[in-house]
Amino acid sequence: METVERLIRSTQELLWERGYVGTSPKAIQRAAEAGQGSMYHHFAGKAELAKAAIERSGAELRAAADVQLAGAGTAAERISGYLGRERDVLRGCQVGRLAADPDVVADPELRAPVAETFEWLRTRLAEVVAEGKRTGEFPDSLDPERTAATIAAVLQGGYVLARAAGSTEPFELAVQGLVDLLGAK
Amino acid sequence: METVERLIRSTQELLWERGYVGTSPKAIQRAAEAGQGSMYHHFAGKAELAKAAIERSGAELRAAADVQLAGAGTAAERISGYLGRERDVLRGCQVGRLAADPDVVADPELRAPVAETFEWLRTRLAEVVAEGKRTGEFPDSLDPERTAATIAAVLQGGYVLARAAGSTEPFELAVQGLVDLLGAK
Repeated sequence: METVERLIRSTQELLWERGYVGTSPKAIQRAAEAGQGSMYHHFAGKAELAKAAIERSGAELRAAADVQLAGAGTAAERISGYLGRERDVLRGCQVGRLAADPDVVADPELRAPVAETFEWLRTRLAEVVAEGKRTGEFPDSLDPERTAATIAAVLQGGYVLARAAGSTEPFELAVQGLVDLLGAK
Repeated sequence: METVERLIRSTQELLWERGYVGTSPKAIQRAAEAGQGSMYHHFAGKAELAKAAIERSGAELRAAADVQLAGAGTAAERISGYLGRERDVLRGCQVGRLAADPDVVADPELRAPVAETFEWLRTRLAEVVAEGKRTGEFPDSLDPERTAATIAAVLQGGYVLARAAGSTEPFELAVQGLVDLLGAK
């Protein structure tokens, strides 16, 4: 693998596990098996490399979500499929995790790819909910934009509750509860 | 204020803002206007002080939730009141925030008060949902334990989405979407 690619992937992993505050340039270089000179040859510093890593993580989240959301099946099936797909729950969301990071949230350059990823996700979910209203799968009273935000929030909050509990159970309960509510006409 | 109290409150603030990984003993001492000797006289180290601070934050979350959840009104009113109460959304949840912290999640002593707080919250919410089923406010098909997890997840995930967006809007949309779904009989 090329050095740039190793640097980006290692930074993605470290940001996911330790966050921006907890990730040092030294740790990145060690994980990427890259020298300090090599890292600074390709990137101006930790912030620029982190931005590239967050953009990559955002692209991965979108691709993974679209497997179900833009896949086959009715609107309700696609949303259930997306909610129920296999996830490493106790690891949490590699993008959502960054919203807890004060230095990411405070830096417009670092926050932008996080914001855009969830903006994209909520827009995509709202499209599927609107489609489900047209086909009569979802009640006409459902507001697509609100419902999309609720769906995205249940997943992100489910990760928080699961990590707090040290168990996937609260995540699964939260998702099942949402599926119940979405099914209630 | 007593030194112990200042140390605990300063640690609560720093954990909320910077997380455990991003909070140094020096920063605590500075914020608490306490010397190093004084801090280590009262607490064995950062971990013991953090445990006391997290326990305090958990107790505050429970007290704040019970203002609405154990207050006056029907079950549905109490849940809506809890969801809609004033919050510093962009600051996030001082307890939920810690679930993103690898050193908190990995340490059973530090994770325990986080786990217990959300366990308590989900139990309390499930009681109110069960009460609303008995009074006919909520449909009989609602599972209290699942619904409680969904409610807690929407709040925690709403904070994540809001901080990601740099705006309270996704939080408000997610909560409104949940209220809509809970209202659908």
